[in-house]
Amino acid sequence: MVLILLGSVVRNISEIPSSNCGRDGLSHITIAGAVADRLKEVEVWLQTFAPGTRTPIHRHSCEEVFVVLKGAGTLLLGSSSSKYPGQPQEFKIHANSTFTVPINDPHQVWNTGELEDLQMLVIISRPPVKIFIYEDWSMPHVAAKLKYPYYWDQECLNSPKDEL
Amino acid sequence: MVLILLGSVVRNISEIPSSNCGRDGLSHITIAGAVADRLKEVEVWLQTFAPGTRTPIHRHSCEEVFVVLKGAGTLLLGSSSSKYPGQPQEFKIHANSTFTVPINDPHQVWNTGELEDLQMLVIISRPPVKIFIYEDWSMPHVAAKLKYPYYWDQECLNSPKDEL
Repeated sequence: MVLILLGSVVRNISEIPSSNCGRDGLSHITIAGAVADRLKEVEVWLQTFAPGTRTPIHRHSCEEVFVVLKGAGTLLLGSSSSKYPGQPQEFKIHANSTFTVPINDPHQVWNTGELEDLQMLVIISRPPVKIFIYEDWSMPHVAAKLKYPYYWDQECLNSPKDEL
Repeated sequence: MVLILLGSVVRNISEIPSSNCGRDGLSHITIAGAVADRLKEVEVWLQTFAPGTRTPIHRHSCEEVFVVLKGAGTLLLGSSSSKYPGQPQEFKIHANSTFTVPINDPHQVWNTGELEDLQMLVIISRPPVKIFIYEDWSMPHVAAKLKYPYYWDQECLNSPKDEL
C-alpha cells in the first residue's frame, strides 16, 4: 500500500499514513517531503492536535509557515537573541489564519480549545527538520537537545548540519 | 491596511489582498513569502481557478508542492529531458489530493470542471519564483520566456539566478 502511494504522482491525502509520534492527541501526516518524495527544499505536514495538546518548546534553523485549517489555539514565541528563550509572547491563532516563525526562535503551539481539534498545514524549508527541544522557557539555547532524525524522518540517513 | 497586515505575526488569510494577475478567473493570494515576510526559502500561495481556467505552460527550477483544497482538474506534465516538453502526461487532481512537480519539468494545471472553482495551496522553494513560459508543448526549452519578477513579486528587486 505504501509503495503504491510512493509511486503515485497524485496522492489522496486521506490515504497517506498518519502517526502520533508517541504523543497522545497528535496526528502527523507528511504530505510531501524528504522521505517519500526526496524533496530537499520544502516539506509539508498536516498536523492535528486534540484539545489541550501542544508541540514541545523547540527551535530549528529552517523557515516555517503555518496555515490553520480548523480550530483555534495559541502560538508562544520566545527569543533567540538572549541566552535563553525567556517569557514568550502569546498570539491567538484561529482557522483561516497564517503565521511564520522566525528562524531559530524557540516556539510552541497549543490547542487551547476545549472541544475542537486544531488542524494546521505546516511548511518547512530544507528537510529533514533538525529540531532542538527545550524543557522550559528558561533553558539556555545551548542546552536544548537535538532530536534527529525526527519521528517522521526515521528513514532519512543524512547527517544534520551545524546549527545555532 | 496592508501595513497593518505586514506587521502582524498572525494574519487572517481572508484579509490578505488578492490579485487576478491580469487573468480572468484567477485569484492569487501570497499567504507568506518573499515580499511580505522576507522569506528566502519557502513561499505559500492560495490560488483559485474558475471553471475552464488554467495556468500557463511553464517551468521553474524550484521545488513545488500542491495541496488541492476544493474542486477538481487536471495536471499536465511534460518532460525536461528532451529538447521540448512533448506530449504531456495527464493526471486527475481532486480535493484532498496532493502532488509535487519535479524541478524544471514543464507543467500546467487546469480547472477542467464546469461548475466548481479549483482551489489549491501551492508551496514553492527559493522565492521569488523565476517562471519560464511556453506557448505550447512543442516549444523548445531554450525558447521559453522568463517572466521575472512574476506578477505578485513586483516589489522584489533581486536578480534572477541562472536557470536551465
